[in-house]
Amino acid sequence: MYELGVVYRNITRADRAAADGLAALGSATVHEAMGRVGLLKPYMRPIQSGVQVSGTAVTVLLHPGDNWMMHVVAEQIQPGDVVVAAITAECTDGYFGDLLATSFQARGARALIIDAGVRDVKTLNEMNFPVWSKCISSKGCIKETLGSVNIPVACAGMLVTPGDVIVADDDGIVCVPAARAVQTLEAARKRESLEGEKRAKLASGVLGLDMYKMREPLEKKGLRYID
Amino acid sequence: MYELGVVYRNITRADRAAADGLAALGSATVHEAMGRVGLLKPYMRPIQSGVQVSGTAVTVLLHPGDNWMMHVVAEQIQPGDVVVAAITAECTDGYFGDLLATSFQARGARALIIDAGVRDVKTLNEMNFPVWSKCISSKGCIKETLGSVNIPVACAGMLVTPGDVIVADDDGIVCVPAARAVQTLEAARKRESLEGEKRAKLASGVLGLDMYKMREPLEKKGLRYID
Amino acid sequence: MYELGVVYRNITRADRAAADGLAALGSATVHEAMGRVGLLKPYMRPIQSGVQVSGTAVTVLLHPGDNWMMHVVAEQIQPGDVVVAAITAECTDGYFGDLLATSFQARGARALIIDAGVRDVKTLNEMNFPVWSKCISSKGCIKETLGSVNIPVACAGMLVTPGDVIVADDDGIVCVPAARAVQTLEAARKRESLEGEKRAKLASGVLGLDMYKMREPLEKKGLRYID
Amino acid sequence: MYELGVVYRNITRADRAAADGLAALGSATVHEAMGRVGLLKPYMRPIQSGVQVSGTAVTVLLHPGDNWMMHVVAEQIQPGDVVVAAITAECTDGYFGDLLATSFQARGARALIIDAGVRDVKTLNEMNFPVWSKCISSKGCIKETLGSVNIPVACAGMLVTPGDVIVADDDGIVCVPAARAVQTLEAARKRESLEGEKRAKLASGVLGLDMYKMREPLEKKGLRYID
Amino acid sequence: MYELGVVYRNITRADRAAADGLAALGSATVHEAMGRVGLLKPYMRPIQSGVQVSGTAVTVLLHPGDNWMMHVVAEQIQPGDVVVAAITAECTDGYFGDLLATSFQARGARALIIDAGVRDVKTLNEMNFPVWSKCISSKGCIKETLGSVNIPVACAGMLVTPGDVIVADDDGIVCVPAARAVQTLEAARKRESLEGEKRAKLASGVLGLDMYKMREPLEKKGLRYID
Amino acid sequence: MYELGVVYRNITRADRAAADGLAALGSATVHEAMGRVGLLKPYMRPIQSGVQVSGTAVTVLLHPGDNWMMHVVAEQIQPGDVVVAAITAECTDGYFGDLLATSFQARGARALIIDAGVRDVKTLNEMNFPVWSKCISSKGCIKETLGSVNIPVACAGMLVTPGDVIVADDDGIVCVPAARAVQTLEAARKRESLEGEKRAKLASGVLGLDMYKMREPLEKKGLRYID
Repeated sequence: MYELGVVYRNITRADRAAADGLAALGSATVHEAMGRVGLLKPYMRPIQSGVQVSGTAVTVLLHPGDNWMMHVVAEQIQPGDVVVAAITAECTDGYFGDLLATSFQARGARALIIDAGVRDVKTLNEMNFPVWSKCISSKGCIKETLGSVNIPVACAGMLVTPGDVIVADDDGIVCVPAARAVQTLEAARKRESLEGEKRAKLASGVLGLDMYKMREPLEKKGLRYID
Repeated sequence: MYELGVVYRNITRADRAAADGLAALGSATVHEAMGRVGLLKPYMRPIQSGVQVSGTAVTVLLHPGDNWMMHVVAEQIQPGDVVVAAITAECTDGYFGDLLATSFQARGARALIIDAGVRDVKTLNEMNFPVWSKCISSKGCIKETLGSVNIPVACAGMLVTPGDVIVADDDGIVCVPAARAVQTLEAARKRESLEGEKRAKLASGVLGLDMYKMREPLEKKGLRYID
Repeated sequence: MYELGVVYRNITRADRAAADGLAALGSATVHEAMGRVGLLKPYMRPIQSGVQVSGTAVTVLLHPGDNWMMHVVAEQIQPGDVVVAAITAECTDGYFGDLLATSFQARGARALIIDAGVRDVKTLNEMNFPVWSKCISSKGCIKETLGSVNIPVACAGMLVTPGDVIVADDDGIVCVPAARAVQTLEAARKRESLEGEKRAKLASGVLGLDMYKMREPLEKKGLRYID
Repeated sequence: MYELGVVYRNITRADRAAADGLAALGSATVHEAMGRVGLLKPYMRPIQSGVQVSGTAVTVLLHPGDNWMMHVVAEQIQPGDVVVAAITAECTDGYFGDLLATSFQARGARALIIDAGVRDVKTLNEMNFPVWSKCISSKGCIKETLGSVNIPVACAGMLVTPGDVIVADDDGIVCVPAARAVQTLEAARKRESLEGEKRAKLASGVLGLDMYKMREPLEKKGLRYID
Repeated sequence: MYELGVVYRNITRADRAAADGLAALGSATVHEAMGRVGLLKPYMRPIQSGVQVSGTAVTVLLHPGDNWMMHVVAEQIQPGDVVVAAITAECTDGYFGDLLATSFQARGARALIIDAGVRDVKTLNEMNFPVWSKCISSKGCIKETLGSVNIPVACAGMLVTPGDVIVADDDGIVCVPAARAVQTLEAARKRESLEGEKRAKLASGVLGLDMYKMREPLEKKGLRYID
Repeated sequence: MYELGVVYRNITRADRAAADGLAALGSATVHEAMGRVGLLKPYMRPIQSGVQVSGTAVTVLLHPGDNWMMHVVAEQIQPGDVVVAAITAECTDGYFGDLLATSFQARGARALIIDAGVRDVKTLNEMNFPVWSKCISSKGCIKETLGSVNIPVACAGMLVTPGDVIVADDDGIVCVPAARAVQTLEAARKRESLEGEKRAKLASGVLGLDMYKMREPLEKKGLRYID
């Protein structure tokens, strides 16, 4: 259950270097490095393609059709943050447009992750303010009801705690707990460093069956080839 | 209930200057200027991004899998119209492709809004004929059953009356009643004229909390800050 | 019911020239030329736009969350093939990324059609390896369970037999049975050759109502014009 | 586009005897008698099974999350009416529960058709107040915004005009225009009177192929039997 | 790709005793006995609860909105069959009602599995004719286009070959290949015979952790208990 | 982000009397008493109707297709608990059937709330073990991967902390934080005590417009009556 009407001003952000460094690895590699957990649901899609970001989460909980708390969370943004917005019920309204993006950008926010809709997407793209959302909608919001800022939230099926690292790109969004950011960065880099060699082998025509030595385990499981 | 098998040739189109002028404001601003009503459901998406159009609605009601009436509505198009197509049941078929687009464009249509699928999207984009649709599908249609042209239709959840103004862009689609087109244009322009100043303030780091004087009402509602 | 744990090495591929030639016609025209059958469901979408491919199907059946058989199917790819991947249950995981794409491309595969998710889409696009999928997801797969290669599969609602021709573009995906590839190519070309003239007429303002002589049948069905 | 903030007190209801008589025929037969049009989308489901009702439509347009107009429409209900509720945007909230049902029932309403959610469904069933809805949800509504009563609305994809006849049962919901109620009742009764004899024949083992003389047209279309 | 316009009159049905015997085991146990494959997608739901059937599949492929082939398949039904109906595209129409059910029942059909809609569900339930479908809809069909009977079809994501065994109950639908029906029955019975004892132990308060000896493997995987 | 591989044995359960007493109020009333928050998404549906339960939450986090932790959570159940199961990704598999239900029931569990599928629903209903789930599926699970028990989870869009009170009935599911259970019970009882009188007034024909004194605020908002 959510605590409503509170703004936590002091949150423990993940190690800055780790939070910054994870962007380059991308959500798929980071997800593997985490032990294949931490992903938000794949209905979340970027409004622009080709962008890869990471940053520390500040969270905001909003009510359906009401974006008042977006202005409250703006004040809590520090440079390098990613705003993660959850809604207390299903909603497709456009909670965020070019004015809020201007404010978020001025505060140093790197992106918005929102389990609802956004609008002014053409302008947001021109501003280079990246957004991952459930949908796009012209429908605006009212400003009537209190939610909360910097409480743990369930966003697109994933629990996000303020200060966690968010990594987002064309493939999706992964949440890395603050306490594991440094080790995840290392694990992800190790994973990636092995990829170049593998790619070269596969490009030369070597099969994964041989490179990964899969033929024997497949045979043991009973795979039959029929001519 | 729909009247079937009829084509209304004389419809009262909204004021031309207003219908033309609304495109520049965009669906989000127009929707706000209308009192936050008039939007089609957000599952309607453009097949191309970055396009912003407005025009007067001519409507067509079609049956699932049958696009015969598309040829009937073509004759009723006047320059500056936007065709709004509704289906009597759920259907994802491709009702519209490059040949129909050629015909619609020759008649002066500015866009198609269809609560079903379209095809030849690559060519449609090359032709610069904008379409907002529920989906994209190669599946073609038969030509067997009568629908109607220029009757009020329910398209993507919104009632559209022939002659209304349609405003569509990346954010969505809004329908403005013909009788309110002029005043909506004015209201939307007023709204927009205030945005530049706001954007500058927010860009300079002023918070919406202060610019909109939200701190006091938030406190009255009981918002608590916790350090 | 699917046969599990088998790899058919010898499949009868459709006529090569026909399989290659169908790409240029596109899925919509081929679907019409087939008698309006053969389409996969329209939720299948390209990860890149503007690409048009055709090729002979090699099929793979996978389990949810398990992409082991992707490496098995890689060995069965011949130049000019399109891999068609079906899953035994609903799954949105990312079964395929840049490493597998490198391998598939090295084997001569032209595209992947998968009724699940893929990842590394940015890199896939840079590699020009076309994919049509149900979704995009960073979530990787394990390698534990046997599926099959080159058995008939149900992919996105359509039965695909190994060796069939797959034609895919922005509009969707159509499956042409190997035995009908040559005649379908002819029929599709005939269809297309008539389109240029039609387009010119429609562009000049001639109505479909007149060009297709629809006025009389519409009147017979009872269409009424009301002024 | 919807007119907001208005209540039309005088609507022309369909012929009472026809409106009452259509319940016994059921939505499937009435839909056929209408020429296979008029159905609301099949996502609308009864909260109870086995109920078959018909009545004259009074309509109400509501905003997402706001059920204020439910109290306004209550006053406009006359015995034999069915309330048809549309929402200006997607919403799954519970707009209607046992208190409103008590009021509607006291006014003589026969059922509610709502393109959103309802709650207290156990009590509604005990009260024998039938509801067809998009979903069920405990989430209540606020009372803040004006909608309208007795304007034409788009409900679950169908245009409903106040005074039309609504026929609803386990199979779905059909809307019969007031002007066609009498003739639809006749056509539906004629249809139904033929069904008893057909059912007896089919029950005795006569095939539809023979009873409907389908063998010849199927053969002409090219149907082949293979032993 | 589907072969259209053909009716296979001679199909090899699974062993009758096995086909009949599988009903009592239920879809979940049969699915386990098969090695956890063979299930149709879970969006398929019974129109009545508490029914458990099995039988040999006769298949029919239909076009969207067209149920002509339902009459053709009726003639191919033998006592003990279950009709499995697939559609060439997404469709929610009501393909089947009380008249067809009367005919199917007269021919000895035990149930219908259809990847689309049905209607007259109240009467179908009164007739005790079980149906599993994607949805329920009053919308009827036309009789214009040829499909096929007794070809392999993709129904709700599963490939069904004529003669396979279908097992359906409240939990879902599983397809057992004819050639594996006897061994599957044996495996399923063995599975079930062990369940009584397990249930008694669990009912007495023994934990699955102990009964299945899971504590050690869980510990090895690293499970930590925190007080 | 979730902590994996941990089982918290000591959780602080809400006040027992409050946890028990909330069932009688029902999810809709409790949700109102909470200030209209705390609901799980309405796609969660009971497998049986007419049941109303409340209890203290023990939580379990599972992986897609893997129900191993169900046996681990069983040991942590105390009489009066409700098990709340969340999955790390979308999954429709049947995680829970009659054997696990027997074990849960033996431990004193009152219900299961699961954001995935269950099976053996006929038997579960006969056992009177209530379940609210996303779907029903015969598909079983493997036992390979560690999740966690009694950590905060995001279930059907709501954050659930171990020890919170869960109230579930035909209308849906609400989560009451342990710290607010007593006051919520009081508020809900107060709400309910007022309902009897209101119901009697409405049943006698008094309108909500008058009972709630809505006429004046509606007029002030500009509602117009048109004869």
